[in-house]
Amino acid sequence: MEQRIGKQTVELKNPVYIRAFAAIAGTKEQEGPLGECFDVTMPDSEWGEETWEKTESKMQKEAVRLAIQKAGLTSKDIGYAFGGDLLNQCIGAGFGLRELKIPFFGIYGACSTMIEGISLASMVVDGGFAQNAAAVTSSHFCTAERQYRTPLNYGGQRTPTAQWTVTGSGSAVVSRENGDVRVTHITTGKIMDMGVKDPNNMGGAMAPAALSTLCAHFQDTGYSPKDYDLILTGDLGTVGGEILVELMEKEGYDISKNYQDCGCMIYDLEKQDVHAGGSGCGCIGSVLCGYILEEMQKGRWNTVLAVGTGALLSPTSNLQGESVPGIAHAVRLEAVKKGESSCSI
Amino acid sequence: MEQRIGKQTVELKNPVYIRAFAAIAGTKEQEGPLGECFDVTMPDSEWGEETWEKTESKMQKEAVRLAIQKAGLTSKDIGYAFGGDLLNQCIGAGFGLRELKIPFFGIYGACSTMIEGISLASMVVDGGFAQNAAAVTSSHFCTAERQYRTPLNYGGQRTPTAQWTVTGSGSAVVSRENGDVRVTHITTGKIMDMGVKDPNNMGGAMAPAALSTLCAHFQDTGYSPKDYDLILTGDLGTVGGEILVELMEKEGYDISKNYQDCGCMIYDLEKQDVHAGGSGCGCIGSVLCGYILEEMQKGRWNTVLAVGTGALLSPTSNLQGESVPGIAHAVRLEAVKKGESSCSI
Repeated sequence: MEQRIGKQTVELKNPVYIRAFAAIAGTKEQEGPLGECFDVTMPDSEWGEETWEKTESKMQKEAVRLAIQKAGLTSKDIGYAFGGDLLNQCIGAGFGLRELKIPFFGIYGACSTMIEGISLASMVVDGGFAQNAAAVTSSHFCTAERQYRTPLNYGGQRTPTAQWTVTGSGSAVVSRENGDVRVTHITTGKIMDMGVKDPNNMGGAMAPAALSTLCAHFQDTGYSPKDYDLILTGDLGTVGGEILVELMEKEGYDISKNYQDCGCMIYDLEKQDVHAGGSGCGCIGSVLCGYILEEMQKGRWNTVLAVGTGALLSPTSNLQGESVPGIAHAVRLEAVKKGESSCSI
Repeated sequence: MEQRIGKQTVELKNPVYIRAFAAIAGTKEQEGPLGECFDVTMPDSEWGEETWEKTESKMQKEAVRLAIQKAGLTSKDIGYAFGGDLLNQCIGAGFGLRELKIPFFGIYGACSTMIEGISLASMVVDGGFAQNAAAVTSSHFCTAERQYRTPLNYGGQRTPTAQWTVTGSGSAVVSRENGDVRVTHITTGKIMDMGVKDPNNMGGAMAPAALSTLCAHFQDTGYSPKDYDLILTGDLGTVGGEILVELMEKEGYDISKNYQDCGCMIYDLEKQDVHAGGSGCGCIGSVLCGYILEEMQKGRWNTVLAVGTGALLSPTSNLQGESVPGIAHAVRLEAVKKGESSCSI
């Protein structure tokens, strides 16, 4: 039990690095404030494929390929790939990664999938099961609308609390050596269900899960919000983000000064008509792997608590009157200090 | 890289035990050859719930609860739960486990999910991230028919190669101590796609994945089929099972004498009208956790290679003309010899 330091947190005993990362985004994301940050921006919603689902698979394949290439590795060097997405039966990952021939663990954490993947990839690397492991996820506005809501050409009205599914993919290669950012702690979320039943208010449904995981992280580690340059959630949006800051304050934690949400960063909320902000597995996927990690390399933030937030509903569960359970997974990321070797060998 | 002993296999360096296990099954499964083996048999398809999906969630909740109870533990002792199923967005696990308040990693490996869960649970225990971890999965004939095929009351004809989705759930508690069966090796599958496009021939689509993982296991470990009392696949059924034995023979491995498939064991294939056998996450889930592990305890088999087999398709991918990728994950199980302490502390 060397690494367990609390009910939900482990501290990695070996140096585990994010060795490389890559992000792919769509045209609407390119038009947003982070538009210049993505490695690849697709020319349109199809990217040469016959269906949006095939496009999303291609996004995952290319994101992983690019991350592996940027790491100076080949797919044979990757011990495990952890991939998942929002599509039924996770076909974005299943079809996207089939050509790469990497031992594959499919995961499903809704929009927390990117951090679930980094958590598990870090554990298998820290535990000595692989030298390198990859995490990947994606979402696509058109596949999500088709599957979860209404056909796009129906032109349904969106509620003010609704969020806009990000068309994007992110992949990170976690490694025992060579990286500018370390994963030091992993706090794994419990399923939280406060009874929210509105599938158009995901932020509100997921905020209690983010609260639970943040509180567990601080209690388990002894860190406080002040120990972070940035506390980042995946896709609570404006509604869920405000709820989280308020709930945290009630618990005695002030995160108002260093808190940001990827769903509020990726779009210009005033001009891009996305209502409460971005959402989807690809939201934190593309923002983390396209922007946050890059800025950590540059020295803008030294300590980041990255919290993926997922809503574990389905259209069927919603039609059957169920509430929307949420889950949030967190990893502590530390920039490797200048002069400090990032090579463990 | 202590544990990696090949391209796809790790050897656990610490003793990791299956400390307890539990299985729940439906009425049709009770009428089969293993009918007496399950811990709980549901009285009907609903088990007191309003919808079959809620029934399936209940099956996972009760299977995990029972396994934890049989382990002499409470949910607070479980460091991580790994759960998934065939339902869209894995709501069987998401809703089933929400009350248990265990740090949760959602997984998706189609019908390989049980072995994916045992693999990851074993890794987090071996790696020192938790003292105990649980794996759980389920399937339900009625939810699967509704989601994947046709409404039950449509009465569609089934093809000869079609399999019958098992109504069942299995859960195992993996632990650093106290168990009669050890997990010693984990061979993680790659996604294999040989171009099979018939969603009514899952066995045929998954057989190449089982072949790939079995060959990798034998190459990585140096074991041969003779080193196993039982080589067990999840749900290849009669069609896929025959293909596997033949393909293995071409690769120089004779598994004809010690090979069995859970999909052929759980039903009386002559009398129960299930065509090519059972399938679904709950097939190997309930057979492994209801029968195989129990028989290993009794000394019937000392070494078992348990191979979960999954088809990573979705109804959407099928409608879009895609083939059916398969994946297979394997774990080597060894009965703890009499007189050998199963306590690592």
